[in-house]
Amino acid sequence: MQLESIYHTPNHRWAYAYNSETFHLRLKTKRDDVERVYAIAGDKYDWDHHCQEVEMEKIAADRLHDYWEAVIRPEFKRFSYGFRLQSGDETIWLTEDGFSSEQPVPAGGYFEAPYIHAIDLFEAPEWAKAAIFYQIFPDRFENGDRSNDPEGTSPWGEQPEGESFFGGDLQGIINRIGHLNELGVNAVYLTPIFRSPSNHKYDTIEYREVDPQFGDKELLKKLVQTCHDNGIRVILDAVFNHSSEQFPPFQDVLKNGEKSEYKDWFHLNGFPVEVQDGVANYDTFGFYGNMPKLNTANPDVKQYLIDTAIDWMKETGIDGWRLDVANEVDHHFWRDYRKAVKECNKDAFIVGEVWSDSLPWLLGDQFDSVMNYPFTQIVLSFFADRTISSARFAEEMNRLLMRYPQQTNETLFNLLSSHDIPRVMTRCNGDTGRLKQAVVYMMTSMGLPCVYYGDEFGLEGGEDPDCRKCMVWNEEDQNRELFDFYKLLIALRKERAALRSGRYRVLSAEEDGGSLIYERLDGKEHFTIWMNRSDESAELSHPMNDGGWRDALSEEQVDIQDGKLVIQLEPNGYRILWRKIE
Amino acid sequence: MQLESIYHTPNHRWAYAYNSETFHLRLKTKRDDVERVYAIAGDKYDWDHHCQEVEMEKIAADRLHDYWEAVIRPEFKRFSYGFRLQSGDETIWLTEDGFSSEQPVPAGGYFEAPYIHAIDLFEAPEWAKAAIFYQIFPDRFENGDRSNDPEGTSPWGEQPEGESFFGGDLQGIINRIGHLNELGVNAVYLTPIFRSPSNHKYDTIEYREVDPQFGDKELLKKLVQTCHDNGIRVILDAVFNHSSEQFPPFQDVLKNGEKSEYKDWFHLNGFPVEVQDGVANYDTFGFYGNMPKLNTANPDVKQYLIDTAIDWMKETGIDGWRLDVANEVDHHFWRDYRKAVKECNKDAFIVGEVWSDSLPWLLGDQFDSVMNYPFTQIVLSFFADRTISSARFAEEMNRLLMRYPQQTNETLFNLLSSHDIPRVMTRCNGDTGRLKQAVVYMMTSMGLPCVYYGDEFGLEGGEDPDCRKCMVWNEEDQNRELFDFYKLLIALRKERAALRSGRYRVLSAEEDGGSLIYERLDGKEHFTIWMNRSDESAELSHPMNDGGWRDALSEEQVDIQDGKLVIQLEPNGYRILWRKIE
Repeated sequence: MQLESIYHTPNHRWAYAYNSETFHLRLKTKRDDVERVYAIAGDKYDWDHHCQEVEMEKIAADRLHDYWEAVIRPEFKRFSYGFRLQSGDETIWLTEDGFSSEQPVPAGGYFEAPYIHAIDLFEAPEWAKAAIFYQIFPDRFENGDRSNDPEGTSPWGEQPEGESFFGGDLQGIINRIGHLNELGVNAVYLTPIFRSPSNHKYDTIEYREVDPQFGDKELLKKLVQTCHDNGIRVILDAVFNHSSEQFPPFQDVLKNGEKSEYKDWFHLNGFPVEVQDGVANYDTFGFYGNMPKLNTANPDVKQYLIDTAIDWMKETGIDGWRLDVANEVDHHFWRDYRKAVKECNKDAFIVGEVWSDSLPWLLGDQFDSVMNYPFTQIVLSFFADRTISSARFAEEMNRLLMRYPQQTNETLFNLLSSHDIPRVMTRCNGDTGRLKQAVVYMMTSMGLPCVYYGDEFGLEGGEDPDCRKCMVWNEEDQNRELFDFYKLLIALRKERAALRSGRYRVLSAEEDGGSLIYERLDGKEHFTIWMNRSDESAELSHPMNDGGWRDALSEEQVDIQDGKLVIQLEPNGYRILWRKIE
Repeated sequence: MQLESIYHTPNHRWAYAYNSETFHLRLKTKRDDVERVYAIAGDKYDWDHHCQEVEMEKIAADRLHDYWEAVIRPEFKRFSYGFRLQSGDETIWLTEDGFSSEQPVPAGGYFEAPYIHAIDLFEAPEWAKAAIFYQIFPDRFENGDRSNDPEGTSPWGEQPEGESFFGGDLQGIINRIGHLNELGVNAVYLTPIFRSPSNHKYDTIEYREVDPQFGDKELLKKLVQTCHDNGIRVILDAVFNHSSEQFPPFQDVLKNGEKSEYKDWFHLNGFPVEVQDGVANYDTFGFYGNMPKLNTANPDVKQYLIDTAIDWMKETGIDGWRLDVANEVDHHFWRDYRKAVKECNKDAFIVGEVWSDSLPWLLGDQFDSVMNYPFTQIVLSFFADRTISSARFAEEMNRLLMRYPQQTNETLFNLLSSHDIPRVMTRCNGDTGRLKQAVVYMMTSMGLPCVYYGDEFGLEGGEDPDCRKCMVWNEEDQNRELFDFYKLLIALRKERAALRSGRYRVLSAEEDGGSLIYERLDGKEHFTIWMNRSDESAELSHPMNDGGWRDALSEEQVDIQDGKLVIQLEPNGYRILWRKIE
């Protein structure tokens, strides 16, 4: 066995409490190098009477590694553990002390899971685990009130520029609640709505006020109430990393310099506070002088921002927050923020914007989820760009899934488009077949799907601002067939728990081709999803002992032939099969 | 290159802020497999103008891996990064997206260090970094007041039993302040002193009262003042995982069962609360029914315990806490505890008792240090048991050092003995030569040394209670030569900053033998430490360009011969060489 490739460390994604009674252990080994792995778990205070050996399951493989998992249910909420690895005649033990060819004396030097505390668990709200989100960029969704249109508002549907305004507003969203209902989503995420000079409003002037171009607090309350009446949750966008340069405390700093009572609200590197030759002498978001970075370590700033979040929750009943540029804000801030938000509403959902590995924010003390852009990238490489085979796709997706604990994967915020990347239809070069496969994958995957407004009608759009075009409300400009497809998939996911929390596993993938079969499985239902990612017809088959398969969308019965399921797929075809487990 | 052995993840010990300006990146590769590694670090908002390439240094090796480190000083407190690995003609890039044979496009898919926040740094108090601790088990150190001796107190020096009392007390410690001064330690750690039925007092009855057998609050204040007057800091032992069964809230639970207002103070699994056939129906420390586990997630319990800690700090001026069974208490508790303790005294030092991998408690939000028992084990395997060669010793120690960030290693609480393990002299089978080498290693290592009372006189003792014998105050029973040796080493460590915070690196170790040469190095001083762990004389040599070496203890000059330092060592010999860097 290749010892130097074996990895385990007794914390975070490698060893974590799944719930109050259950602990997961994971280990990785070189791919196809180890035949069996056992976890040996005992109570260090009385090892002889309380010891169990659990065979680990190979739950995933990426290009280089196999990943093994054991589910441990300790008698007394605590245990010490080691691993026994076998390959051919070779047996190796691994404990915290390292590798050994003989079993180390229990329990000295073993890894420890000291005690499972419910309060330390990573736990997202129940509703969020079943959520299907819809992202709205308010200026571009629907203009429900022409009286609040800003000066110079462009005609609806015109090609957007960086500074365009189109007059979309909260009343527009209320007016279109029927659309959300028909589509079937049960949660919306609005990009920022607080007072700001820009159309995107990621540069806040007044955190305590709805931008008058969108409406006011009363209208926001009405929007939330309307959504709730329709079974739709609402989360808003909190931009706490930075403000607008027009934010009054920053204006005070510009004016009064060192004498400003707000000088510790920002990260100032000199006086007078200024931008010289395009370079600001204060920390900014990116290099944008008009977005000064807030000093969230300052207790006054922290209190102000957290109070702001709580007041909005109390006054409007919103169900949570998406946190902008969340990875550039300090962890102490987020811990206190979470505490306040969850005290106000234990069911509030917190989604951070973090594009890269997000483990430090997902340890249970900060966020419930992050925007899962790595998922987007892998899905689009396979289904849209077609630059990787299904085997590479399976490996990359497994590598991503092994980045986080299982319960975290179940609540990651999956997306195919957003206001920050080109739309999925454009990534698919307008090919609806490719797009549908990507959507099927998202809707049958671990993690919460989010539909970006307009994707359901096949709206196209490249890089910002093109991906922020106006919603298409003329039926003749809408791809109604695609809309029906979205409805069907959303309805299916909402109906079937196994698609949300069932085990995910790839059953078949091709080294050089694009055929893919994967399953979702819980104790009650079993799904197999079949994909032909090619422009030719294909016959896919997989050994299967259990019968009772039906097409999950058409209810058509599918029979086992000679111990196999054999499925004919059209070019770009997909099939979702389902059976009840007796 | 063996890709499956290469490991990096963009957080914690693999990527961490060392201070407000400096970030450390670490990567491991198969041992002797990779020739050069470069870190490529750029600002993702303007990669072209703000990109640097830093060659990584091979800072350590263990049996299986080489460890590489780069020190990055980003211009704007943030950067994205990847690695370039070279071996022969082969070049491989590693980013968050995985391995690639071509350089990935900056900065998509690179790892991220999003922003260095001072508030998130792991930072121990300055004094602690220079501390040399002395651990006292109060019942066994000195009886300074016979009037408070408990009934049935045993004669001083008798062989201790599990339930023995010997009458040691706070006045005894005050009386012996001269001994601490003479030894040279600058901090003491007292095992628990609050009211408890046992001699060890790890089962607390009254957290707010000094045990009358040790003294009272006034005497504790006097002890702290006396220590402070002598330049000695004081930390106490906080036992917050569990209490005594005689703790009044638990007595209330025993009496009133479900009706007790304290029923949520513990982890009760049934009523009536009881021990049946030796099995408690409530969670306990280990399986001890007389030590019920406290429910630290209960806000009332949390407040009570934190207030207790703060009140003792305010009333007596103590400098910090050692936390008993710290790994079995929830993380939320410790985060709030730390916040309160540091608000009361930002220079307070917090040391957790965690015997295994302690990363989850050492992320900056909980402890400043943990008791470093893995260090003890490795040092004793090599110097006392002599079961491993110096090469294995170097590898095991490097593996331990690579478990934590550099600044954490600098404040770990190193020890050779404690009240929970056999004494070092007994582990050395009474061989003073072995013991001295272990002490030299501890005193010249990364991490804070702690001397367990009596070790300085060669006190022996096996497993508890034998390791808790009475201190030997008759001069004729003391090993005075050993005491002088301890004094010398302690004085040296206090005098020389490079021994506390200088870089540690092994220069030479033997695959099968016990010779060892290692160095400590900062910008001003350079130490090389030479060890002959054998019963034969030995000549050790190492190539050396720089001159000016002196024996750090005797000041004797040591010359370079033909570009080498050549050192003659007696059986069990050691030599500490020192030079000033111009």
